[in-house]
Amino acid sequence: METAAVAASGAGRRIMVAVDEGEESLHALNWCLANVVSPAGGDTLLLVHARRPRPVYAAMDSAGYMMTSDVLASVERHANAVSAAAVDKAKRVCADHPHVKVETMVESGDPRDVICDAADKMAPDLLVMGSHGYGFIQRAFLGSVSNHCAQNCKCPVLIVKRPKE
Amino acid sequence: METAAVAASGAGRRIMVAVDEGEESLHALNWCLANVVSPAGGDTLLLVHARRPRPVYAAMDSAGYMMTSDVLASVERHANAVSAAAVDKAKRVCADHPHVKVETMVESGDPRDVICDAADKMAPDLLVMGSHGYGFIQRAFLGSVSNHCAQNCKCPVLIVKRPKE
Repeated sequence: METAAVAASGAGRRIMVAVDEGEESLHALNWCLANVVSPAGGDTLLLVHARRPRPVYAAMDSAGYMMTSDVLASVERHANAVSAAAVDKAKRVCADHPHVKVETMVESGDPRDVICDAADKMAPDLLVMGSHGYGFIQRAFLGSVSNHCAQNCKCPVLIVKRPKE
Repeated sequence: METAAVAASGAGRRIMVAVDEGEESLHALNWCLANVVSPAGGDTLLLVHARRPRPVYAAMDSAGYMMTSDVLASVERHANAVSAAAVDKAKRVCADHPHVKVETMVESGDPRDVICDAADKMAPDLLVMGSHGYGFIQRAFLGSVSNHCAQNCKCPVLIVKRPKE
């Protein structure tokens, strides 16, 4: 669609955008920047990311591999790196729109709870998200996070789908 | 929130808004007019309304009342009047925003199908709706229409909730 932008005639709005490691949320973020955010400036994007919670492992996994503290630390570092990369990528996208203020929130946990809690706490004017499952539950429950947030968040919820190529 | 509006920098956008007889969809329409539609003009609102489908009655209902053609015609007139009132009310709300073009679509059927089919056919840039059940399934399935459309419509879907008073 044609580039359209929001000209805020009053104080800027706070628009929460849920980001994860996938392309779907990046598409939603780009759509939001193109179609919702005011080009005149003043709006703030609150990027919310749910980091995989620290898993609880048995001392030995199914393959008989010892889950030593070194292995656990390595897994956690990887998870944190993935999270950081997702947030950084989203921030870089926003950097192309210097009139937009950006804040980030990263919390560990189920994306459904993280996003809804963040929306409750920050009371944004709008929550924007992609439609496919977030993060580690992506393949299991298509759309479950966006459905959950659409049902449970009190603010307006905008669900943006990435067209199938 | 502060009044914000969308300034379309290119061709106007086509924004579909699902309307029914309830207050929820009116609230969504007003939010859309305040926060999405361009004040500079050029945007078109496509108001979609699902009219109750013509019911199929047995010749005699459970109370033993004969469902004569007169009665059926009366019921249908009432249903059409309710539909017309819902659409008219929405159009009057839009009339306060003369820079917005308005088109209406009324189809009989289940709101989930009517709205999704309309979105498929008209390919709007955005679909806006309230969160509570539409029309005759309102009390039965809270949120089922918006959930269905959020899952099945390809366009971005914005679900606006009416705050509890």
